[in-house]
Amino acid sequence: MNPIKDSIHDYITLGPVASELIDTPAMQRLRHVKQLSTVRLVYPSANHTRFEHSLGVYHLARTALSHLDVDEETAALVRAAALVHDVGHGPYGHQTEELIERRTGKDHDDIAWLLTDPERELCQTLESHDLDPVRVAALVAGEDGIGELVSGELDVDRMDYLIRDAHHTGVPYGTIDHGRLVRALRLEGGRLVLGEGNVATAESLLVARSLMNGVVYRHHVSRIAGAMLERACERYLDRTETGIEQFRRMPDHELLVELSAEVPELGRRIERRQLYKRAVWAEPGDVPRGTMDAGHEEERTAEREIADHAGVDPTEVIVDIPDRPGLKESGTNVVVDGVVQQLEDASELVSGLRATERARWRLGVYCPEEHASAVGEAATAVLGLKPGTGNR
Amino acid sequence: MNPIKDSIHDYITLGPVASELIDTPAMQRLRHVKQLSTVRLVYPSANHTRFEHSLGVYHLARTALSHLDVDEETAALVRAAALVHDVGHGPYGHQTEELIERRTGKDHDDIAWLLTDPERELCQTLESHDLDPVRVAALVAGEDGIGELVSGELDVDRMDYLIRDAHHTGVPYGTIDHGRLVRALRLEGGRLVLGEGNVATAESLLVARSLMNGVVYRHHVSRIAGAMLERACERYLDRTETGIEQFRRMPDHELLVELSAEVPELGRRIERRQLYKRAVWAEPGDVPRGTMDAGHEEERTAEREIADHAGVDPTEVIVDIPDRPGLKESGTNVVVDGVVQQLEDASELVSGLRATERARWRLGVYCPEEHASAVGEAATAVLGLKPGTGNR
Amino acid sequence: MNPIKDSIHDYITLGPVASELIDTPAMQRLRHVKQLSTVRLVYPSANHTRFEHSLGVYHLARTALSHLDVDEETAALVRAAALVHDVGHGPYGHQTEELIERRTGKDHDDIAWLLTDPERELCQTLESHDLDPVRVAALVAGEDGIGELVSGELDVDRMDYLIRDAHHTGVPYGTIDHGRLVRALRLEGGRLVLGEGNVATAESLLVARSLMNGVVYRHHVSRIAGAMLERACERYLDRTETGIEQFRRMPDHELLVELSAEVPELGRRIERRQLYKRAVWAEPGDVPRGTMDAGHEEERTAEREIADHAGVDPTEVIVDIPDRPGLKESGTNVVVDGVVQQLEDASELVSGLRATERARWRLGVYCPEEHASAVGEAATAVLGLKPGTGNR
Amino acid sequence: MNPIKDSIHDYITLGPVASELIDTPAMQRLRHVKQLSTVRLVYPSANHTRFEHSLGVYHLARTALSHLDVDEETAALVRAAALVHDVGHGPYGHQTEELIERRTGKDHDDIAWLLTDPERELCQTLESHDLDPVRVAALVAGEDGIGELVSGELDVDRMDYLIRDAHHTGVPYGTIDHGRLVRALRLEGGRLVLGEGNVATAESLLVARSLMNGVVYRHHVSRIAGAMLERACERYLDRTETGIEQFRRMPDHELLVELSAEVPELGRRIERRQLYKRAVWAEPGDVPRGTMDAGHEEERTAEREIADHAGVDPTEVIVDIPDRPGLKESGTNVVVDGVVQQLEDASELVSGLRATERARWRLGVYCPEEHASAVGEAATAVLGLKPGTGNR
Repeated sequence: MNPIKDSIHDYITLGPVASELIDTPAMQRLRHVKQLSTVRLVYPSANHTRFEHSLGVYHLARTALSHLDVDEETAALVRAAALVHDVGHGPYGHQTEELIERRTGKDHDDIAWLLTDPERELCQTLESHDLDPVRVAALVAGEDGIGELVSGELDVDRMDYLIRDAHHTGVPYGTIDHGRLVRALRLEGGRLVLGEGNVATAESLLVARSLMNGVVYRHHVSRIAGAMLERACERYLDRTETGIEQFRRMPDHELLVELSAEVPELGRRIERRQLYKRAVWAEPGDVPRGTMDAGHEEERTAEREIADHAGVDPTEVIVDIPDRPGLKESGTNVVVDGVVQQLEDASELVSGLRATERARWRLGVYCPEEHASAVGEAATAVLGLKPGTGNR
Repeated sequence: MNPIKDSIHDYITLGPVASELIDTPAMQRLRHVKQLSTVRLVYPSANHTRFEHSLGVYHLARTALSHLDVDEETAALVRAAALVHDVGHGPYGHQTEELIERRTGKDHDDIAWLLTDPERELCQTLESHDLDPVRVAALVAGEDGIGELVSGELDVDRMDYLIRDAHHTGVPYGTIDHGRLVRALRLEGGRLVLGEGNVATAESLLVARSLMNGVVYRHHVSRIAGAMLERACERYLDRTETGIEQFRRMPDHELLVELSAEVPELGRRIERRQLYKRAVWAEPGDVPRGTMDAGHEEERTAEREIADHAGVDPTEVIVDIPDRPGLKESGTNVVVDGVVQQLEDASELVSGLRATERARWRLGVYCPEEHASAVGEAATAVLGLKPGTGNR
Repeated sequence: MNPIKDSIHDYITLGPVASELIDTPAMQRLRHVKQLSTVRLVYPSANHTRFEHSLGVYHLARTALSHLDVDEETAALVRAAALVHDVGHGPYGHQTEELIERRTGKDHDDIAWLLTDPERELCQTLESHDLDPVRVAALVAGEDGIGELVSGELDVDRMDYLIRDAHHTGVPYGTIDHGRLVRALRLEGGRLVLGEGNVATAESLLVARSLMNGVVYRHHVSRIAGAMLERACERYLDRTETGIEQFRRMPDHELLVELSAEVPELGRRIERRQLYKRAVWAEPGDVPRGTMDAGHEEERTAEREIADHAGVDPTEVIVDIPDRPGLKESGTNVVVDGVVQQLEDASELVSGLRATERARWRLGVYCPEEHASAVGEAATAVLGLKPGTGNR
Repeated sequence: MNPIKDSIHDYITLGPVASELIDTPAMQRLRHVKQLSTVRLVYPSANHTRFEHSLGVYHLARTALSHLDVDEETAALVRAAALVHDVGHGPYGHQTEELIERRTGKDHDDIAWLLTDPERELCQTLESHDLDPVRVAALVAGEDGIGELVSGELDVDRMDYLIRDAHHTGVPYGTIDHGRLVRALRLEGGRLVLGEGNVATAESLLVARSLMNGVVYRHHVSRIAGAMLERACERYLDRTETGIEQFRRMPDHELLVELSAEVPELGRRIERRQLYKRAVWAEPGDVPRGTMDAGHEEERTAEREIADHAGVDPTEVIVDIPDRPGLKESGTNVVVDGVVQQLEDASELVSGLRATERARWRLGVYCPEEHASAVGEAATAVLGLKPGTGNR
């Protein structure tokens, strides 16, 4: 197997197991699932896929493992887990995640159902190399201590996507010192920690994430397109015979064709980038606590009420209330003066970053441009927002 | 209009006309047409699209025009032509080009039919800004002298794609000094030339192209996938009601879904990267002159004969005979000691590059791996190749 | 004048004034003054000079001015100020700054003495283009409102060096979106502000600075070498006839030769990277307030006392007490919801960054490795540090 | 030992021997020897040193060795040789090479005198690790087969400097696929070859070299400054007591100070970039064969005659006749269809590149600008150039 040329890590050399794994349909499908779904409508260069990202995660895992004290059997399981960690993603990745969770009760990191299905090549390939699919699935879920390398505060998934997303959007903020990070990882008491002298290295991960959140991941245009996509998928599942199991295995391009055909009022708009506009874009201080914590059903109900008030079709209003922001990386373990500490205790920066994330939270209500004014007013009333929020 | 962040040129600022043009369906469709079609099956990071490339070409044209002595009316036409130059491309770009030409009699640079159609937004937008669609179409075809900036030996199309393709594949060979090239362009006697002292700058364009040809554009895996795609499209057009006009307007993702459904024997293989293998990969010296110059019909006939000899299904053999390589850039005009010369007269390198291109020419015959040996032997006989060529 | 190729900004085009200015001896001398003085002993690639940095600052100033509403006469003065802003630096830049200030009473931004000297080419060149040297000097000092573009919270000096230092050290932390910053600058009420929507852009400047401080600018090896250099310069001025005026005009290489010859006990060590080691590296909590605020004289007195206690030669002990860290950029003006605010009021991140800077402050005592233990103990007693600080 | 951050290879990890070797005075001196000597007068960012280059060469050698079938004892010798390969360089590298060869009879690759001197730390360090200095010196000279990795057609020295020089000048032409090159190296019959499928990879090395020659290494301004430097050094050695052995051990900065003091007529001009201009810049066709092959003594004689004819001071004329260009890399061994071939037999490009190099050859005569016309005429006569050559 020739090494594969990657735009981030130059040459990635695959071992024999990895070479077979990437040829399975489940992995090849990731060539057709974009890493940043709707972000490409803001950053036209951001067309990279979960396939190349998976290769990058495998590469970083392999490098980190060569510096860690792990037996070869475990290392082989971790490398496999790193490579396949994204096979559970639905089309358009994070954008369909919640919908799939609501309808299947399982999140995208739970891929045991897929890995242990003996009908599938993925399962067969793992078993033919004496790699237990159940253990690989557990590692993908971040279990067993070393699983934190695949899914945890210091996982190589995060390192790869922050660098890769920055490279492909062209934004200079996501650049982190991954060369140093993978060398600084240690296993202490079965947990993954960053060795002495790396508080700043750990901080740089949080900082990169925070800056990327601001300008890329939570860009309002991408959020609008994402919310339109999610509504379109729900209508698609409601209107057609397609089941959730079939849906979650679709590649991006198939879904896009289906949405254009079956949910044209949204699908064609997404395809042609004729996006809804913001009727409301409210800061935390403008939003009552109850509204802030609204769940999916409450969002749907609010949409209908707002449409009713504003006199528009209920399918033309989207209420988008994100979760309160967390900062998962703040739990990173770092060694300071010989003692393992959580990053938030060792770093003065974490609370500042957390406050920044909170301040950047926004509630959005979106609709066709011609209704923005009416919908804005109606939404202010229905959601109990501070008066005046609706006519920005 | 905010400037757009690009992975190659950092910020691209769009003028008012360009801002409107990119919102037309014809331009937005280019978000769904990959620049390098099947190359991504070899270089997984190469997922960039003709949309971002079009923005880059516009940007370079604008920069070059600011250094050229051109009146603003002409400049506005050239900028529009640079931006829309790729709207005539079918799905999967160059891979469907010949097929579309065969069935429509028009090549992809001839976009007058599209630009002058008053039903289309593209035409309407141009006219609303007093830009004559006929003149824009002529510039896209490389006419009127200054049209060479859009399509010619020194066009900004080439500069952008060589840099962009190198960046996204991760290959270091396509890097050319575009900053110097756009500054060195001059109009002399109505023709575009490179000013004094730029023979080496011009050579670097040819060299970049030649190196990219070798490792990217003509990589055998990409050629195999491309040939499979072309056959799949022909069968698709033969088996379905879809007309060539509808076909050429499809975006990549729609075609891929159609091919999987209607031509599954090839479409699903492409989607899952289960590609044919080389049964023959013959150098120029192994191939009789008549075979070298075979056209499309002769290729089809040979495929049937080879299949017959080898005892396999005729749909499983693909004969791929590329045109003899040219080196269009060798006609570049450069000023040397005050006199305009063609690059091939001013540069000792051109003949070496031309010979390299010729030596790298390969005839390929592809089929499923299990038939490679039988098909190789049969093809050697049918195509009159040097004995032994078939069993490499 | 041909454009100049720069490793950061690609081609930099110089206007006629700039072309003449860079040929003056004062500007050419900056080819021999390194941007990061002793940092190259930690990051071997960091050999970039104040000459190329000056070109970069000129380039960014010119770009920013093209987006600002400034008359051409003022713009010409600002461009000249940007280009010459570093001519007042002594050899090894910041490392000799305090020493020169102590002995001349002037800081490096005060270059009126140099610009207005009619004997010097710099003055003559400015005047020959009707540029008033007094006004240029005032702009370099950050005066006149628009002078903030050259020296202020949002100056292009900072932008260039953060990017350039990151590029040349190889550290990925200093990358800021300068393309966006220079486009987002506005003049409001005579002050430089960042336009609406740029709180995150402003934060990224502070973050880059903070991360660079941690791993580059305040790296302990660079601080040790810098402290050795400063002591060496003082001894050099005390031991020889060289006056401070002659000293401050030296280029790096001349100073290094002089120090090796006249102060060999330090000069040769610096040249060969045989550096002192840390006897003490104390955190803020270990240091009494009085010690923290010690001035130059008190440092010198402490060195003699420590040497006496430890029984070593007084020339072999260096006490290095940095100023308490500020965060100048926190005063950046940004427009938020139409109102100009200071960044620290608009950003939740600033206080976190300020606390980080404070927590990273370290007091150092350095000496030859063989005395580290004795000097550490003595320094703990003399400086009143928390017991145990000396034997790390 | 912490890994060292490098602007090209990211982190370079040093083994224990390398860690000790870089602390020797001979290696630390390379921090003060620039890689591109006078090129920085054209490309201001090109200030990188032979120290960082040496680390890069060590890194590439180590990577290549990990893919080659070489015993660990030999590998240790090769790594040491890669690291120290440049310690024999005089100040300003290639610019003083010929002068040192003329006066010592030894070229810079012959460093046995230095490595085997038991008084020197370099020798002591090697011996303390059981590495025979004589064998290391032989490897630096390219001997023993595997020595070709350090000095040969495919050496890692060349790979590192082509990439590094491109990065630091900002020129995009020197970028080669070193990741692929070091992986493709094989030892066949005791010789270093590139494995199957790498003709294009080998060509890219030649092409990079050729393009860099054109715009960087042989840029006329750099050649003028280099010729001035060489004359200055000769006068310096003639005028002072400094012996050639002391001279060749000087770092750049010491030489520059000495030249300014002892040969001010040239030294100060170099320091301030007040360079001579071209009185003659003759192509191969303008120069008689005898003149083309002139040696050092004949150049000196011609200078005196030209000065005499032109009526200027003989110290103000410099005649610069480079060797006829070779293309060392054309001897590269590559495996084609299982057989080891020389690149020039396997590649159609080599002869084109060779012709390009020949056509780019120039004879130069330089002097102060005010004498250019008189000196040009005189030189045309004295050197027998085609009439008219002198007044370009």
